[in-house]
Amino acid sequence: MKDQNCGYCMKNELLDPFGIYICDLEASVLVLFKEQSHPGRCIVAYKDHAGEMVELTDAERNAFFADVNRVAKALHKAFHPDKINYGAYGDTGGHLHFHLVPKYRDEFEWGGVFQMNPEKKFLSQEEYDGIIARIRANL
Amino acid sequence: MKDQNCGYCMKNELLDPFGIYICDLEASVLVLFKEQSHPGRCIVAYKDHAGEMVELTDAERNAFFADVNRVAKALHKAFHPDKINYGAYGDTGGHLHFHLVPKYRDEFEWGGVFQMNPEKKFLSQEEYDGIIARIRANL
Repeated sequence: MKDQNCGYCMKNELLDPFGIYICDLEASVLVLFKEQSHPGRCIVAYKDHAGEMVELTDAERNAFFADVNRVAKALHKAFHPDKINYGAYGDTGGHLHFHLVPKYRDEFEWGGVFQMNPEKKFLSQEEYDGIIARIRANL
Repeated sequence: MKDQNCGYCMKNELLDPFGIYICDLEASVLVLFKEQSHPGRCIVAYKDHAGEMVELTDAERNAFFADVNRVAKALHKAFHPDKINYGAYGDTGGHLHFHLVPKYRDEFEWGGVFQMNPEKKFLSQEEYDGIIARIRANL
């Protein structure tokens, strides 16, 4: 099921303020998070407008986390972070998604949680394209 | 593999500063987070000292998230939050665990991320026992 008012469902201008659609995966949609204080930060959103993990079947949940894991492995290969953080919030939204946030030793927010959106580091389209190419090459 | 210096591995005094061991699940250890600004907040830690999701096999990952899902369903039944947030950080620790953080509409940190530890709301042992009993009854 798709929701016409949801950027993850529609992959349209509702996504533009914070994300760039990269590709569909088996059970999800991969989005680059425009705010790149954590180089490589992405969102893996479920393919349908499910609100929370508990709404999925076992098979759907396994497929979704297989995608999360695939993207995490790609981020490790592409950007060599020291750790990846995983966070799902969306209190006021209705579409299951995880933020995958590469963390680098002694750099921004190392050792703590991450902000929803630091609103600090935005890149040129060319730089975004370069990051997306590195992710795609490692998926 | 267990690490003698890890509270999730040893379930001993290393856990005491922040958590109360509840029980083992199939692939994990369930811990009540002592700071209860978000009523029902728990931690689901992997049964072994794996550092991150990407280190698990597919079967191990599926079993782990089945446990996360089981606990989330129990929290929904026991405490009726409007949403549960899920977060894995552990930049400086080495043991895969997810914080399960029940959120309640218009209450503490609704609509945003959650702090690693707000250090605001600690309960009596009797109150902790009551929360643990409600979780256990719904697992």
